[in-house]
Amino acid sequence: MTKAELFDQIKAKGSYLCVGLDTDINRIPKHLLSEEDPLFEFNKQIIDATADFAVAYKPNIAFYEAHGVKGWESLQKTIDYIPDNIFTIADAKRGDIGNTSKMYARAFFESMNFDSITVAPYMGEDSVKPFLEFEKKWVILLALTSNPGGKDFQNLSLSDGREVYEEVLRKSQDWASDEELMFVVGATKAEALTKIRTIAPNHFLLVPGVGAQGGSLEEVSKYGMNDQCGLLVNSSRGIIYADSSENFANVARLKANELQKEMSKYLEKII
Amino acid sequence: MTKAELFDQIKAKGSYLCVGLDTDINRIPKHLLSEEDPLFEFNKQIIDATADFAVAYKPNIAFYEAHGVKGWESLQKTIDYIPDNIFTIADAKRGDIGNTSKMYARAFFESMNFDSITVAPYMGEDSVKPFLEFEKKWVILLALTSNPGGKDFQNLSLSDGREVYEEVLRKSQDWASDEELMFVVGATKAEALTKIRTIAPNHFLLVPGVGAQGGSLEEVSKYGMNDQCGLLVNSSRGIIYADSSENFANVARLKANELQKEMSKYLEKII
Repeated sequence: MTKAELFDQIKAKGSYLCVGLDTDINRIPKHLLSEEDPLFEFNKQIIDATADFAVAYKPNIAFYEAHGVKGWESLQKTIDYIPDNIFTIADAKRGDIGNTSKMYARAFFESMNFDSITVAPYMGEDSVKPFLEFEKKWVILLALTSNPGGKDFQNLSLSDGREVYEEVLRKSQDWASDEELMFVVGATKAEALTKIRTIAPNHFLLVPGVGAQGGSLEEVSKYGMNDQCGLLVNSSRGIIYADSSENFANVARLKANELQKEMSKYLEKII
Repeated sequence: MTKAELFDQIKAKGSYLCVGLDTDINRIPKHLLSEEDPLFEFNKQIIDATADFAVAYKPNIAFYEAHGVKGWESLQKTIDYIPDNIFTIADAKRGDIGNTSKMYARAFFESMNFDSITVAPYMGEDSVKPFLEFEKKWVILLALTSNPGGKDFQNLSLSDGREVYEEVLRKSQDWASDEELMFVVGATKAEALTKIRTIAPNHFLLVPGVGAQGGSLEEVSKYGMNDQCGLLVNSSRGIIYADSSENFANVARLKANELQKEMSKYLEKII
């Protein structure tokens, strides 16, 4: 998917919502456990319920890989089921040297036809570039994550006064344009987002942690949005686990719709 | 496997060789392609041929994942086939927040019974700790990698004059002892190894890049070895792709034996 196509979808739906498919066998409604493939059945119903309001789906690869061969099959079926016009993110946080990254790129971009993959930056340029060789496919590079440990290394002060994540944002722009590179930015505070937009004004930012994790959608939108939206805001648990009864999909739809309505308000400023 | 058990094996075999199973369908001998599971058949013959000289095997997870469900099956069969007394490393370079890391830990430590997994440090403490909750299982944390892009972020100068990778070596020791934490160190130069041993005197170091990639085993051993050996030196291509004929396993055995003989010489200093 191109950047323009993604923006078109955002405008059409009045939404920049990404639904995280962190599908955990221990958390899905009990009545699904008798299905042949409970993970896929859950995802299928979530996708049917939320596709009107979501512009992206983000399966968290670990949750599938934990089930070995069976999990891999559930993931393949899920990615095949997501409508083609919706952006897909393999939240895999891969990062390895050239030949190995190429293998991962093939797995996620060719075998499974994801639009994008999250990549860890620690090994630098030659761990990221192999993912950039696929047309209309995206790298979403970890820059600033919102977990407590994020500060251990991402916020170390460099000799020039900047922090490590700032150099990740800057340096990686030598490797790819904003037509194929996005950043994971867990920031929900005005100050951090403003600084990030100074370094990367045009890139899409994938922002986790709004909703269940407590970030403010209003703040993120106010300080993170650019003239092509430039935001994909993820919600996982707040949508997919909002209800654990047989009615879960309807409740997920309502929760997604709530976020979409708020987003459409913030989008009015740019469209 | 405990540290003492690993050291016992090193002493018994006179070797600290790790064989990297970067098993690429395009590089294995052609006559294996007619087998039902060529990746596993190749690994099986490599393991049979080298188990006398290797103390560890390191499947590179990407090479299996690239084949989807089938690759996952080949990996499972491979890990089941490796003798129990040989250390196993899932070279997966994972790193994600708590719940997700827990999923990966289960996949590699429980479903597949690996002894260890390589982990990327970028997300910090809560991305590493879930892997440490499994008894006799190890985290092998990326510290200093030998690929060209390694310097992009790992060698950034901090405000106190140290480099990022030094803080990774130091900080992570707050989370785990050298009984469950190792480091990936691509350094093959005396100066870097000496500095690393100042920061982490007792930890095992997994050193890739000796052999086909040009590092010197003599230098690594001279400056990296501690009184419990403290080294696992990996060779992949130099062993497994040394020959591409039907005789490949015999040649792999010879190459592994060559490295083992050199290693046994260096081990004389400590055992």
